[in-house]
Amino acid sequence: MRLATVSGAAGTTAALLDGSDWRALPAPDLSALLAGTPAGPDLAALAHRAGDVVADAVPVLPLPRPGKVVCCGLNYGDHIDETGRERPRYPTLFGKFADTLTGPTDDLHLDAAADWDWEAELAVVVGRPLHRADRATATAAVGGWTVANDLSARDWQRRTLQWMPGKVWDATTPVGPVVVTRDEVDPTAGLAITCRVNGETVQRDDTSTLVFDAADLLAYISTFTVLRPGDLVLTGTPGGVGMARTPPRFLADGDVLETEIDGIGVLRNTVRMSGGS
Amino acid sequence: MRLATVSGAAGTTAALLDGSDWRALPAPDLSALLAGTPAGPDLAALAHRAGDVVADAVPVLPLPRPGKVVCCGLNYGDHIDETGRERPRYPTLFGKFADTLTGPTDDLHLDAAADWDWEAELAVVVGRPLHRADRATATAAVGGWTVANDLSARDWQRRTLQWMPGKVWDATTPVGPVVVTRDEVDPTAGLAITCRVNGETVQRDDTSTLVFDAADLLAYISTFTVLRPGDLVLTGTPGGVGMARTPPRFLADGDVLETEIDGIGVLRNTVRMSGGS
Repeated sequence: MRLATVSGAAGTTAALLDGSDWRALPAPDLSALLAGTPAGPDLAALAHRAGDVVADAVPVLPLPRPGKVVCCGLNYGDHIDETGRERPRYPTLFGKFADTLTGPTDDLHLDAAADWDWEAELAVVVGRPLHRADRATATAAVGGWTVANDLSARDWQRRTLQWMPGKVWDATTPVGPVVVTRDEVDPTAGLAITCRVNGETVQRDDTSTLVFDAADLLAYISTFTVLRPGDLVLTGTPGGVGMARTPPRFLADGDVLETEIDGIGVLRNTVRMSGGS
Repeated sequence: MRLATVSGAAGTTAALLDGSDWRALPAPDLSALLAGTPAGPDLAALAHRAGDVVADAVPVLPLPRPGKVVCCGLNYGDHIDETGRERPRYPTLFGKFADTLTGPTDDLHLDAAADWDWEAELAVVVGRPLHRADRATATAAVGGWTVANDLSARDWQRRTLQWMPGKVWDATTPVGPVVVTRDEVDPTAGLAITCRVNGETVQRDDTSTLVFDAADLLAYISTFTVLRPGDLVLTGTPGGVGMARTPPRFLADGDVLETEIDGIGVLRNTVRMSGGS
């Protein structure tokens, strides 16, 4: 099943793909749908709740209000190698805000004074509450999968020991376009993940090579904080980031950034540089 | 003016201190009061909105749902020295979740397998929206001040490059007991900040010695993300943390942790160790 938040003539609605049509679900967006019941919705039963076809539906940011956005860094072998680090024993985690997210086709309004780099990522949408879960429980709590790009202002990320200021600029992490439910794709079996800049492939890897997979990450995070339906976990980026190139390569005004995971979908965002901090 | 979220017979309510009485304000808590108007409430006018005295009022977590909690590390000279680092050019920032916070007299239920350390901190409550603000605008956007203890699981904090897993265990950061409005105290002029364990003073410093003061932090953060009324910024801890001692000293079951800032108030929390992760 493919779920999305779509915009139509009457505003946004949660929706379910039926052939080539988006049918409305009874919530204004997927954040509301997933948070609507404390235990998480019965995703398999959603098909019976789908209503009218939404005319001219366009997928927007699927989860506008996740309670938590947790990101893992250094989680693909080739990216760990290009940063010159050792394979990790524990996941390297940091957070984003709901404000950091933006839609799958939104322009990326970036500060021209910073060094902006791409990071194609598989994102996990939490479907059930999790607290101190084991791997099996964590696997069953995956509601679905989506695509994200953890765009990073590298100079701000490197100013201090903690990466936050390079990772949480408002509306710089595109997410979407759809949430594919767990029964439909299996990233541990391997999905191609690709990032392109103006059509040139800059990252290409396979989600089966993640050091810590979704179940590892959800179980680990749930040791110290509860995860709830609609929370988002970004699983890290493969090799090929701009900062690791010689010379480093960063995004420029007008660049078209495409982030794709086979079997899920593609984000297509245009960079609009302005100002300077 | 001293504001709080208090619990009484009829549940919780935002409240204002009038002599020794808490008078109810028209919101269930300070998060709702501050978020109630996009521009932030007119705090000076709140006195006219105070209603009945709340019988048996007890201050609880003043801000149960901050949209953002941003914390600064390495912000007092003596603490920077005890960690062996240089004076920073930029604030070292990381985040917490709303779930990380707990009330001013709540027991701290901690995982006995981790190394728990204290961090007394001055916290800033944002009173007005801020985006790309200068110092003067940031100063005027301070809604008030409260006390926090950024309790940290040091072994988890040090597992990787990023501190998050040591900093965001649910219900481990006590905050409160009151929010004192900006007109009433001036931390830049110097307020004594103290942490005690079972009555023994373990940290004692002065808020005037902060490397980055509240205006610096709010202005800097607002460069990359909007701050809204009710958001919380923790300003860092002075020297005297347990991990810097020889041998290191961590919290134990039954310890009474007191965190106090002169002119604001005191947190008093008892440690309850259990389990082991």
